[in-house]
Amino acid sequence: MNNYPYPIKIRAVWWDESSKEVCCVNTKKLPFEEEIICSKEPGRVAKAIIDMEIRGAPAIGVAAALAVASYAYKISNLNREEFFREIENAVNILWNTRPTAHNLFWALKRMKRIIHDSIEKRLDVKEVSVKLEEEAIKIMDEDIWSNIRLGEYGAQLVPDNATILTHCNAGALATAAFGTAEGVMRVAWYKGKKIKVIATETRPVLQGARLTVWELVKEGIPVTLITDNMVGYVMRKGLVDLVIVGADRITKEGYVINKIGTYMIALSAKRNNTPFYVAAPTSTIDLESSINDVVIEERNPDEVRRVMDRYITLPEVPALNYAFDITDPDLVTAIITEKGIVKPPFDENLKKLLS
Amino acid sequence: MNNYPYPIKIRAVWWDESSKEVCCVNTKKLPFEEEIICSKEPGRVAKAIIDMEIRGAPAIGVAAALAVASYAYKISNLNREEFFREIENAVNILWNTRPTAHNLFWALKRMKRIIHDSIEKRLDVKEVSVKLEEEAIKIMDEDIWSNIRLGEYGAQLVPDNATILTHCNAGALATAAFGTAEGVMRVAWYKGKKIKVIATETRPVLQGARLTVWELVKEGIPVTLITDNMVGYVMRKGLVDLVIVGADRITKEGYVINKIGTYMIALSAKRNNTPFYVAAPTSTIDLESSINDVVIEERNPDEVRRVMDRYITLPEVPALNYAFDITDPDLVTAIITEKGIVKPPFDENLKKLLS
Repeated sequence: MNNYPYPIKIRAVWWDESSKEVCCVNTKKLPFEEEIICSKEPGRVAKAIIDMEIRGAPAIGVAAALAVASYAYKISNLNREEFFREIENAVNILWNTRPTAHNLFWALKRMKRIIHDSIEKRLDVKEVSVKLEEEAIKIMDEDIWSNIRLGEYGAQLVPDNATILTHCNAGALATAAFGTAEGVMRVAWYKGKKIKVIATETRPVLQGARLTVWELVKEGIPVTLITDNMVGYVMRKGLVDLVIVGADRITKEGYVINKIGTYMIALSAKRNNTPFYVAAPTSTIDLESSINDVVIEERNPDEVRRVMDRYITLPEVPALNYAFDITDPDLVTAIITEKGIVKPPFDENLKKLLS
Repeated sequence: MNNYPYPIKIRAVWWDESSKEVCCVNTKKLPFEEEIICSKEPGRVAKAIIDMEIRGAPAIGVAAALAVASYAYKISNLNREEFFREIENAVNILWNTRPTAHNLFWALKRMKRIIHDSIEKRLDVKEVSVKLEEEAIKIMDEDIWSNIRLGEYGAQLVPDNATILTHCNAGALATAAFGTAEGVMRVAWYKGKKIKVIATETRPVLQGARLTVWELVKEGIPVTLITDNMVGYVMRKGLVDLVIVGADRITKEGYVINKIGTYMIALSAKRNNTPFYVAAPTSTIDLESSINDVVIEERNPDEVRRVMDRYITLPEVPALNYAFDITDPDLVTAIITEKGIVKPPFDENLKKLLS
């Protein structure tokens, strides 16, 4: 299963086999410090997700699944009744961390299915723990392989010598490994295409400046940093050949919910006839809910009033802090998944892809 | 001349009558420190403009004109030949500080005209100094009155209870006093309209977070801060009734050159049917050059790699730092000037306005 066709230089979230713990890179401290957090406590993993030590829709899903498995081992000395009560409580804690990314709910639903099957089949606690570990590792491995496969589909859309603009971090650090938007860049790069990347800094939490820059420098792919508000002008100047971003959720109609700022990039791309691609595994696609059901997370306004813990404005001024925005289907050129490239009309073609 | 119809609470640049010096608020230190700089040295004022201690197209023009006058007094002990050589040198130093804002060249051209007239009329050095002082003060006073008048025109476009989105700082701190975009807000406010303002932080130098927030809090106008990349989403959510921004130059065709990010705001406004107004005195309008003649200033990439002097990314990563961008005429609803409101077609109507 792990015989990957490309180097895997960065892992954001993984399973420590010996200690049965979920481990992750603390992305909040990058690029200045490479801290690793390992835990068996769903509360600690939930905190890591809420505080964005672990972030990126697929990474959140994988971390939550692994956290359930890890906790199962930790409490496997309990009796069945206590065990299942505790494990369902753990699922709930993780479920309520962040409201927007679909992968979190998708991964936890898979873990819940194992729990319910185990209850029905009257498996003992040790057996359930093994099953939960298997499922969580499967979710993690599937994520890596999805990224590799969507990277291969997406790389076909990348011309040689292209400059790709990306937003936030849809990289190895947003997934178990390899990345979605960055997965496409990696495959193009390893296939010998001389790409360059323009990364937006991505305020307020600066995932572009801190994570995408760090990750691409580590990979050896040339990267140039801009502020979020420069996207329109660099496109207008003809410096961008295509845009690739990730997604936190894609609705059945083809609306793309992604990091705040994505919508304005899509508008700039439309105006300048620049292709705008969304790279996301099918675990991001939510065929059940429509755009009106999506909750856009509002985070602490201090993230806006501060940069890396220092105030940039009067500390008492009100601020808005929407973490995500909505990009309309008509602004999206194509959605790149591990099952193939989806073109408009998205409402029809997403359904076909997943059926 | 100074019997203003509204309170003038903030002055960015002024003439100190007793010392014959140009004085300004050091906007780089706001909102954390209110430092005042006074000088007779064109080199010092040029440095203040280059380093953005003085910034905003009208403020730069006024400061440069006052700097020429101040220097004239300083060197009025020189003989005529030396005096004129020195004063023309001073004009050149100020001319070469920043390439994009039109008001700088407009103001310095007026000062040059006084110099040339004085040479022709064989005025003595003392007389020239007085003439230069008169002209510089006239430029400053005209700027304040232009802002008040354009504020009055613009306020007619602002509905009661409106939420106005603005970018960067086109306020008192970008002009001699009162502001352009903020001039419109001030008149609307003093006429009793219950407006609210959404201010973008305006990376990389954060004029929105640092200056617009400070200025509006001081004025008592409610203000909410957002990151630059939130504009599209807040418009989409219906939180914005109109946009008002300033301009560093408006070409004869109606292209608006303003702080980087303006173009993406205009695209978001177009998409969401939100009126997009540009408030600028006619000294900003450049009927001589076309869009192809405009130089977009590129500044030190460290402004992008850092926030308030601290690195937010790997210090060695390349970065682009365009200070301005270009907004096409079709994205602009109207241009608000002290001579009236200009509507499309701008190429025709700007010419009419200035004839």
